[in-house]
Order: sequence, then structure tokens, then C-alpha cells
Amino acid sequence: MAKKKRSRSESSSGTPAAVLTPRDKKTINTLITLADEIVEAADKKKDPHLDIPARTLTNVKYNNTARIIEMGKGTNRRQLFNLTQAKAYMQTLLVAEGTKRLLDQGKTTSIRGLYYLLKHTIEGTKEETFDDQADCDPIIEDLEVTLTTLREELHVYASNRGAMVGPLTLTDSGDEIDCSRMGSGGYSIPSIVEADVIQFGSHRAEFILHVEKDTVWRRFNEDKFWRKHNCILIHGGGQPPRGVRRLLSRMHNELTYRGQKLPVFCLLDNDPWGYYIYSVLKQGSINLAYESKRMAIPDARYIGLRSKDFEECKLTPSVQIRLNEQDIKRAKQIAGYPWFAKKKEWQREIKQMLDNGFKLEVESLISKDISYVTETYVPERLKAQDWLGD
Amino acid sequence: MAKKKRSRSESSSGTPAAVLTPRDKKTINTLITLADEIVEAADKKKDPHLDIPARTLTNVKYNNTARIIEMGKGTNRRQLFNLTQAKAYMQTLLVAEGTKRLLDQGKTTSIRGLYYLLKHTIEGTKEETFDDQADCDPIIEDLEVTLTTLREELHVYASNRGAMVGPLTLTDSGDEIDCSRMGSGGYSIPSIVEADVIQFGSHRAEFILHVEKDTVWRRFNEDKFWRKHNCILIHGGGQPPRGVRRLLSRMHNELTYRGQKLPVFCLLDNDPWGYYIYSVLKQGSINLAYESKRMAIPDARYIGLRSKDFEECKLTPSVQIRLNEQDIKRAKQIAGYPWFAKKKEWQREIKQMLDNGFKLEVESLISKDISYVTETYVPERLKAQDWLGD
Repeated sequence: MAKKKRSRSESSSGTPAAVLTPRDKKTINTLITLADEIVEAADKKKDPHLDIPARTLTNVKYNNTARIIEMGKGTNRRQLFNLTQAKAYMQTLLVAEGTKRLLDQGKTTSIRGLYYLLKHTIEGTKEETFDDQADCDPIIEDLEVTLTTLREELHVYASNRGAMVGPLTLTDSGDEIDCSRMGSGGYSIPSIVEADVIQFGSHRAEFILHVEKDTVWRRFNEDKFWRKHNCILIHGGGQPPRGVRRLLSRMHNELTYRGQKLPVFCLLDNDPWGYYIYSVLKQGSINLAYESKRMAIPDARYIGLRSKDFEECKLTPSVQIRLNEQDIKRAKQIAGYPWFAKKKEWQREIKQMLDNGFKLEVESLISKDISYVTETYVPERLKAQDWLGD
Repeated sequence: MAKKKRSRSESSSGTPAAVLTPRDKKTINTLITLADEIVEAADKKKDPHLDIPARTLTNVKYNNTARIIEMGKGTNRRQLFNLTQAKAYMQTLLVAEGTKRLLDQGKTTSIRGLYYLLKHTIEGTKEETFDDQADCDPIIEDLEVTLTTLREELHVYASNRGAMVGPLTLTDSGDEIDCSRMGSGGYSIPSIVEADVIQFGSHRAEFILHVEKDTVWRRFNEDKFWRKHNCILIHGGGQPPRGVRRLLSRMHNELTYRGQKLPVFCLLDNDPWGYYIYSVLKQGSINLAYESKRMAIPDARYIGLRSKDFEECKLTPSVQIRLNEQDIKRAKQIAGYPWFAKKKEWQREIKQMLDNGFKLEVESLISKDISYVTETYVPERLKAQDWLGD
């Protein structure tokens, strides 16, 4: 496999080759470079190997300047001529070859699709290339970190979840989308939202409101909150998938209001899970630390629910949900995350939840009034600038 | 609470009352009738009670003419002056009152929202109206069957999942949607798709292709299958939620091609779960039998994967997934469903899967070629009219 300059790739199956985007060309080149290094090693009679950045807690650190979680420089060597590493080595090359094929054909697939694309019995043996999906998934992540490329760039996508409405137009795969006229379901956020797929048009938004669940999103959409408050309203169906995180990050960084980056407010549950979602949105996740740079939003603000809200909003005790052992353990873990550990207000917030002994869902505000959250809670907090996280 | 003719409802909270749709008015009237009957009983010094249709297997039957699952006439009486029934009785009225409030305000909520709306400590006691969500959900279903109304008509919605593309325009909540220009994510199907929310515009579709998973849907969308074959492409993210089922049923019954109802083809996995999804789409589900009339599509066709496909498509043994005990049990159960029990071709289909000893996912076709399913499998089956289920 030699490096070539070209804008059309050759298809092995004889079907017309795909037109490659500049991003695709770049990704293909990193894959070719990987292959070339192996050929080179073989030519020099050296043992072929791959140095794969370690995706472990010890190889992850918080960058105080960038305010995101980053991977360290630790790597693990994966060798072909090593009985315990040979299979993983070959699997890694197999995944690399499969993603190159996808890129060449201009097609994308899911991790399930890639697994089926590569799964076969190795000729002359009874050995399967992959025994099951769980065998393939970490190899995909290995390749991502090794090439410092996103799986979306390798044409492998995650599930798409999440929707968006607001005063924003965009182009998605050539279709012009007016996010203020998308019906009750909103614009469905795809998994791949890079600039060659989605281009932003004009917008009149003053901020972005991210809510945790589609049911809460629906309340805000039904009450036309985004019209009254000129904002983009988005949800990620729980823990936001990569597409939603990347889109949030792109909108925050590429769209402006009064010359500033478009602020992002997160309306999440007052529980360890809500804190965790905020933490991932803000500084990235430990498991996918290599993606933080493109996905984390260090300036994201947490606008609720808060541990003080049971008293401040005069909620009925009926809405309290007792913390279980797992919750308490998770809360303490999160309080120890580098960014949170340094913020007095967050230490207070988490401590107060533990003292309360209960958690609160955003939906608990319905006990006040079905539209309390859209008509009172969020508008008042915005006006009072009462949020956490700057 | 007396019956009144009105098109605006009074709001208890002093906020402007909502404009009611004809459907809302009808639903409110059934709720008022329910309440009136209780007042009447009380006036006559009779014990108030509700007769709730039984949602049990024994009260469900297959209607050979309509070819759908229907509820029988069995009911369970729920009385106020009965120690074991009093709480459920009051919960039922509480849910009825809550949904009336939603209708009056012109607002909708999730089952979680309704739970929070109604959850409180009963004055002067330590008793909660509902201990948890699981306490509230069956009461919502009770009310649905008692009033023969859908939860969506009571302004309570399920989660929205599922997307659609194709040569079809529609109006959703006043927004005109062109389903052929919705970007890579497609039109996001809301939970409530009744005629006052969604009105169909023009279409050029010849059939509807329903696929099980969003990942498969994406393959079809990326390959522009719906353009080449003039069809509406839809998925329900696994077991299709109520919104998707109802929309499929509406499109099948309200849109035509060459004077016939728009045919529905289902591309599902060759496993008991795929068979079950087909069965629910076709004849309704046992648990929600009272909804069959509005959701089931007796003419829906099963276009794959089939038990014969391992050989017919010459697939590699690597893609076989061994049936487990649960699969075998489920397959035998489904073979016994009234409709399936009478169809020789389905008995053969299920028997062959059991004989094979393995199941096949639609994605297994990727082992042939990434676009085999869109370019070969489905087109060939359509041309040969090789499907199950007429």
C-alpha cells in the first residue's frame, strides 16, 4: 500500500469510487501511514508493532489551562510476534483495513456493522477474527487513539439520539434545515456532525439550553420556551451521545452572541448521574479522553436542579428520591474529579445533596405546576445568573 | 362537575385557557361522563365503583375477520368501599383528574410527569398517593381501557423514538415538513401523531419500508434506497413505540398507491424478537389489545431476514448466533399465536429457525457487502414478491 495523491479512491468491488472529502483524504492518509510503517518494519526485518495510547485512569490527566481531561503519553506496545498480543495486533489491522474500505466506498456503518464486515473464520483454522461484539469494540477505540482520529472520521457511527429546535438554520447532507420549523419532534441529531456533513447557516440564538431528557425537552418545546427566550433547545436522551456532544461543542465555538461564544446551559437532575453528565459535557469523559479537545465545553454552565431547590422551591417531600449506596459512592467519586475538587461551590452542592439524603429529578418541579420549569424556574435562574460552573 | 358545551376550557390556575381540538373535547366529555356516573351513584346512595376491562391473556382474543387481537368483554369491578380496592379506586380517579387538568390546559406530559403531577402525601395521613412510578403506570392503562381512549388522547405521551424519510410532505404542529429533505437524521417521529397534530400532504410513495434499527435505516438512507424505489423509509429504534405504530397505521390506511392502501414491508431480524415485532405491528400486542384497532396493520408483510437466508444468501457461518433457551421458548410461544398458528408458511419459517439452531441479524448481510441489503436483498425480494404474511 503506497501513498498516492488522489481525490477519488479506488473501489475494490468495482463499484464507482466515492468522492472523498478533505477530511476523508486526511483520515485515509493516516491509515496508509500506519500500514506503511508496518511494511517498513517488515522490510527491515524488524518485528512489526503498534504503540497504542493507554486508555486507563492512570494515563488520564486534567489540563488546568484548557480545563479538559486529556490523555497522557503512556502507550502499550502491541506486537505481532507475541503469542498473547498477536490476535489483538491482527484485529487492530483488520479494523484499520475495514475502515479504509468504508472510506474508499464513501459509506458509513455502525460498530455492529463493522463487526459483521470483519467477522470471519480465518482460513485453514477454526479461529474467528472476533468472537463477539465486545471483542471488536475496544479495538475500534484503540485505533481511534492510535490515529488520534474520531470513529466518525473512520466512518463508524454511534447510535443517533437527541433532538434540537431553535432559531437556527443549517445544512445537513445538502438539505437546508430550519430548526424553528421542525414540528413537534424537532431536528433529529445525527451521529456524524462534522463540518463536511453539517454547515451552520444564520441564527438568532442568545444561548443554548441543554436538557437531559426528551420528556423535559418536550415540555420546553410545547411551551415555546425557545421562542420567548431566543435560544437553541437540545436534548441528548440521557447521557448525550457523541453526535450531540460534538454538535454542542461546535455550536458553542462557532456561533456567537454579542461577539461572545454562544453560552451553554445544562438543565440536569440533582443526582450523581446529572452531575456526571455535566462533568462529561464540560471537561470530557475519562474513557474517551482523547476526544475531549473536540467535544468538551469548559465554559458550560449547570443551571439545575440544585440541592438547595427542595427548600428554595418549596417542594413537597413526596418528590424526594432517597439516595442509595451506589448514589453516595458515585457522588463522592465525582466530588473528587479534579475540576470539581477545586470548586468550593460544587463541593457545597454535592455535600448538601449527601446531607439531604435524597435526589431530585427535573420533573419533580411538575408538582408545583406543569410549566413551572419553563415559566418560573429557568427564567428566574437565568435572570439572577444563579448557576454553577464558570 | 357538570357537562357543558364549550370550546374553551376553564383553567383552574387562572392562566389563559387552551383552545380545545374536537378530539380534546371528546376526551374531556368521556372523563366528565365518568365523573358524573360517580356523582350519580353517590346521589342514589349506591357504592361508587368502576368496571375496568381486564387486561389479561384470558380476556384477549384474535378476531378472525378483522385479523387483529381484541379485548374480550371481561371486566373487574373496582370499588371505593372495599379495603383492598379503595386505594386503586382513588388512584384511578386521581389519574382521571390529572389528565383532565392536562386537557384543560392544552398541555401534554410523559408518564413520569403525570406521576409527579399527582404524587403527594394525602392530607392528615402519611400515605402517598403513589409510592413509585410502577404504582402509577398500570392505572394509566386502566383508564385508557375504561374510557377506550389512547393515552395520547389523555395528553400523556410515550417516549419518542424512530425516524422517517421519503417522498412525503406533512404538517406537524403547523410546521410544513418535507420528509425528503430532512438531512441525515430524518424526520423525528413524535409520540402523538393523531390527525390534529399531523396532517399528510402530498406523496409519491409506492410502499413503506419499516426497518427494525436506526443503524439499518441509516444504511438505506445513505444509499438513497427510498429515492430509487420511491418509498417511505421508517424505523422504530427496536420495538416500535406507539407513535411509530400509529403513524405506520395511519399512512397505510390514509395514503394510497394505484388506488390501494400503501403496502407496508417489515425488514426484521430472523429471531423471535423480530417475529414478535412483526406480530405486534400486524395484529397488535396482547398487553395493549385495546389499541389494536388503531395501530395494527393486518396486511403488513414480512420481508426478512428468513430462516432460509443462511443458505440462500450463502452467508458465512461466522454470522450465526446460536439460539439460547429463552429464544427457543419465545419462538414456540409465537408459533402458537392465533394468526401464526394458522399460517403454514410461518410454521415452516419458525420450525426452520429452530432446526437451524441459530438466528441471523439483518446486519449479518454486511458480511456479503456493506450495501448488499439495499442493493440486492430487498430489491430482489420485492421483485420476486418473496415475502411472508398476506
